[in-house]
Amino acid sequence: MTDILKVAIAGGSGETGTSIVNGLLESSRPKFEIVALTRPSSLQKPRNLAFQERGVKIVAADLSGPEEELVKLLSGIDVVISALDPSAFAAQIPLANAAKSAGVSRFVPCSFATVAPPKGVMQLREMKEDIMNYIKKIYLPYTMIDVGWWFQLSIPTIPSGRTSYATIMPANMVAGDGTTPSGLTDVRDVGRWVARIIADPRTLNKLVFAFDEVLSQNQVHELLEKLSGEEVERQYAIKASDNPRDRYKLWNMQYLHSRGIRGDNTPEYAKYLGYLSARELYPDMKGNTLKQWFQEVLSNKATRVYMQKSTEA
Amino acid sequence: MTDILKVAIAGGSGETGTSIVNGLLESSRPKFEIVALTRPSSLQKPRNLAFQERGVKIVAADLSGPEEELVKLLSGIDVVISALDPSAFAAQIPLANAAKSAGVSRFVPCSFATVAPPKGVMQLREMKEDIMNYIKKIYLPYTMIDVGWWFQLSIPTIPSGRTSYATIMPANMVAGDGTTPSGLTDVRDVGRWVARIIADPRTLNKLVFAFDEVLSQNQVHELLEKLSGEEVERQYAIKASDNPRDRYKLWNMQYLHSRGIRGDNTPEYAKYLGYLSARELYPDMKGNTLKQWFQEVLSNKATRVYMQKSTEA
Repeated sequence: MTDILKVAIAGGSGETGTSIVNGLLESSRPKFEIVALTRPSSLQKPRNLAFQERGVKIVAADLSGPEEELVKLLSGIDVVISALDPSAFAAQIPLANAAKSAGVSRFVPCSFATVAPPKGVMQLREMKEDIMNYIKKIYLPYTMIDVGWWFQLSIPTIPSGRTSYATIMPANMVAGDGTTPSGLTDVRDVGRWVARIIADPRTLNKLVFAFDEVLSQNQVHELLEKLSGEEVERQYAIKASDNPRDRYKLWNMQYLHSRGIRGDNTPEYAKYLGYLSARELYPDMKGNTLKQWFQEVLSNKATRVYMQKSTEA
Repeated sequence: MTDILKVAIAGGSGETGTSIVNGLLESSRPKFEIVALTRPSSLQKPRNLAFQERGVKIVAADLSGPEEELVKLLSGIDVVISALDPSAFAAQIPLANAAKSAGVSRFVPCSFATVAPPKGVMQLREMKEDIMNYIKKIYLPYTMIDVGWWFQLSIPTIPSGRTSYATIMPANMVAGDGTTPSGLTDVRDVGRWVARIIADPRTLNKLVFAFDEVLSQNQVHELLEKLSGEEVERQYAIKASDNPRDRYKLWNMQYLHSRGIRGDNTPEYAKYLGYLSARELYPDMKGNTLKQWFQEVLSNKATRVYMQKSTEA
């Protein structure tokens, strides 16, 4: 393993991107040199300024601009990570082309979500597969990383209201009978998993599933009930909207269907689909537990995700 | 490993199917019990009758008929193999559904061709990926097998005409500069590879690339020139037709582009795409050499492929 890996990240100031930058900064072996590719208009964003203070090089980059410029920015870079929002997925094509031309040795496209089959279940997954298929066509070395569903999006409301401050998307909705197991990860662990995965030759040209816990929705609800002493009000899933203007609602329903009813987001199905298990690759990695996270939420110390609007995931 | 594996094959009387049935019949460990699913109208086909004499159970099956019937036919079957022609690919969907319901432990969709990326290079490959994506969606255990380009489709004409009897598609066309390496297999070895692969737990839910040799087109031509003492007339590839009614021509041009110019059909690219190498899995398997095949052709002992019209590959 190299002592220092040079990483360029697009979308570094989003929820996933921030976790990744933190995870890389935290790592001691290897050390990472981080370049955050940022839209010129975002150079002064608070998260970018905070990164800069911690040694991240913030660079203005126009992903839809001339390829030579991008190739120059990526020259000498070992790993390129995309944590772009779905609305910016198409920008991964020129980024991948530039990474190929610059001789980057690993490209990590934006996946960082639940396990799902390539086609026929989730529109958002199909968009990710389109990018993966393009990467395979240009023979660019890659690692695709999924992390299951976030702890931060697993917080139901309870009658006292004391969990509400921590979520904009209360997780009271139950898909099916609530018994389907699904991989869950603390978003703050995503970067810690990524730091391991991108420095590991075993994960080159592979899918990797990283997760902290595997729990059913009923188990999630029962855990919060036990910790809070309150009852979680269950809602039951309705049919997904198929209005194309309603994409985020559709995607959410498809996530619910895929992880809650089909049971796609499990270590077993991930293996069937060709994923390596990050839990097996790094048995010493201690991720967070949902219990600890719920205790954090109940003691009013949690930070709510999605407080900013951006094109970063 | 089980001592006897029960295999059902659809398209068993085509070129690939016949090789597979022969390969399975030839195997001593494990032994295979073979059921050939055949259209009612093909029960009396000479190849089917010949198989029947060798112990293959020939069964009339309507793949587009009621699923229960198919499930009944597949009950107790360990492995289902499709060697259907592209015109019948869609029939693999009900076959896969029935295999899933019947609890079949491995489904082998029809691939048996060159390595290529999932999307953007070959229409025929994309049709195969559609089937693979469906298989993944229903969580059906599978093995996808590619075998490179056939020796039997690698025979150029020479001035004396003594190779012409052995091919309906003379291989004088050179893609690019003819230096791109590509995996080649004797179609008669396909079944011998398949017999190994489908009895092997390491290949479950994996892509496998089986090939006898890796040679460039120039090497193929030079080999025949050396063996025959004659000169091979090279033709140079023209642009593929994009007339949708001209699918076979288009596919041929796309094969030529993919294996001859892009260089997709190589062990290295196959590994990148996630294939296991059958050569590494079975180092004792002695496949044919192109030299032996050309000697067979030059001594007038070769059998021409594609002498029958059918929906089997």
